[in-house]
Amino acid sequence: MAAKEPVILVTNDDGITAPGLKALVDAMRGLGRIIVVAPDSPQSGMGHAITISNPLRLEKVEVFEGIEAYQCSGTPADCVKLAKDKLLKKPAHLCVSGINHGSNASINVIYSGTMSAAVEASIEGIPAIGFSLLDHHFDADFSAAAYYAKLISQQVLQYGLPDATLLNVNIPKLQLKAIKGTKVCRQARAKWEEDYDQRKDPRGREYYWMTGRFIVQDQGEDTDEWALMNGYVSIVPTQFDMTAHHAIPFLNNNWDLNAKTR
Amino acid sequence: MAAKEPVILVTNDDGITAPGLKALVDAMRGLGRIIVVAPDSPQSGMGHAITISNPLRLEKVEVFEGIEAYQCSGTPADCVKLAKDKLLKKPAHLCVSGINHGSNASINVIYSGTMSAAVEASIEGIPAIGFSLLDHHFDADFSAAAYYAKLISQQVLQYGLPDATLLNVNIPKLQLKAIKGTKVCRQARAKWEEDYDQRKDPRGREYYWMTGRFIVQDQGEDTDEWALMNGYVSIVPTQFDMTAHHAIPFLNNNWDLNAKTR
Repeated sequence: MAAKEPVILVTNDDGITAPGLKALVDAMRGLGRIIVVAPDSPQSGMGHAITISNPLRLEKVEVFEGIEAYQCSGTPADCVKLAKDKLLKKPAHLCVSGINHGSNASINVIYSGTMSAAVEASIEGIPAIGFSLLDHHFDADFSAAAYYAKLISQQVLQYGLPDATLLNVNIPKLQLKAIKGTKVCRQARAKWEEDYDQRKDPRGREYYWMTGRFIVQDQGEDTDEWALMNGYVSIVPTQFDMTAHHAIPFLNNNWDLNAKTR
Repeated sequence: MAAKEPVILVTNDDGITAPGLKALVDAMRGLGRIIVVAPDSPQSGMGHAITISNPLRLEKVEVFEGIEAYQCSGTPADCVKLAKDKLLKKPAHLCVSGINHGSNASINVIYSGTMSAAVEASIEGIPAIGFSLLDHHFDADFSAAAYYAKLISQQVLQYGLPDATLLNVNIPKLQLKAIKGTKVCRQARAKWEEDYDQRKDPRGREYYWMTGRFIVQDQGEDTDEWALMNGYVSIVPTQFDMTAHHAIPFLNNNWDLNAKTR
């Protein structure tokens, strides 16, 4: 029977020591054979970065009792690639990433290392889920998030996911009993309004620190931001086909690109 | 009249000294007021990384005759954010990124620093285009790519782009006269099949170098890979809404997520 156990790859972007990773590993216990490959240092905001020009380190570590775990010197996407090529004989049955300390809802999906690991797994044909809790604190309470991580992972193991589709799951900062349930949503339109704090270093040279505030530009009630504001766990089916299919006719009809003679 | 000149922000991921950037700057001459903000070192494979935990430097440089230019210590997305917040009084009318040394067609869009700069501009509401030439060499011939960069930029300045849509333009490694024209395409399904080269460092510790080969998994004749293989410039309208809208009914119909009592 053990041979039929699903293999579950667990990773994150906050690094191997993050409490959110431990919460996710513990949530996966009992669902299959768990293997953890996580960055050796925090990688937040890394987007879908991969390491091309530097060597990568992969080191076995004893962090989670009874579970095979490695730390990697690369990005979250590197962790998934290395796990696939060097550690797993067959593709994993599920890849879960997180639980991120902080939201990856709406436009944050673009900047998210947590989600880039899940996207990388999905490109490889592995059903994948990114989990994020709307609480940045190191000592955040992950119990409700862990509950939903297990529930949703069970569903994916049982029913699968459509081809080339992964899940972006965000959990509100609420007690489990205060959460109303889950909503399948679309990604809200939103952006970060940056404000760079301009300073001078001890030698008088200028430098900038990024600060910013998050602006939801979307009034829809079918979005992840709406769901989270209203006490639901948001589940956004996510794809790596970035084609704006609806824009193809616009470009074909309005443009005059083959007029080469200008 | 000068006040009505469009403002064109030029950036890239190969860095301020890359020949592809110079080719793009020269292609934009005459189309508007050009401002260049590019990384001070190569940022290939950075995906949509942003710099959160480190200070950023922004330094004025004299690189392109008669053109305002800055180098930035951050990623391509940082360059666009800093330009918007610190250098431009009003949003630019166009942001062009590239010309990248190497393809950003199909799944490469996910890993691409070139495209992340264009995506960042698009999030800000600025019409944006990433240009990439299918030639990795430092001394690649950018003349055909520059021709099409100008042509396509003129079209965007004239006709605009649909809301929340940018362009991913790739140019085949051909002489201008051998290029058959342009094709508006969708992103091909493809992936990188990694093979990590395992080595030992002088102290006997293992490390890995990423190598890999590119696999097109898509037989469609409406894709960017098909267009490029057949001598066309590929233009993929691209969006930052990563929702797999078609998967929402699947999840709503097949899942049993509100059965909390398990």
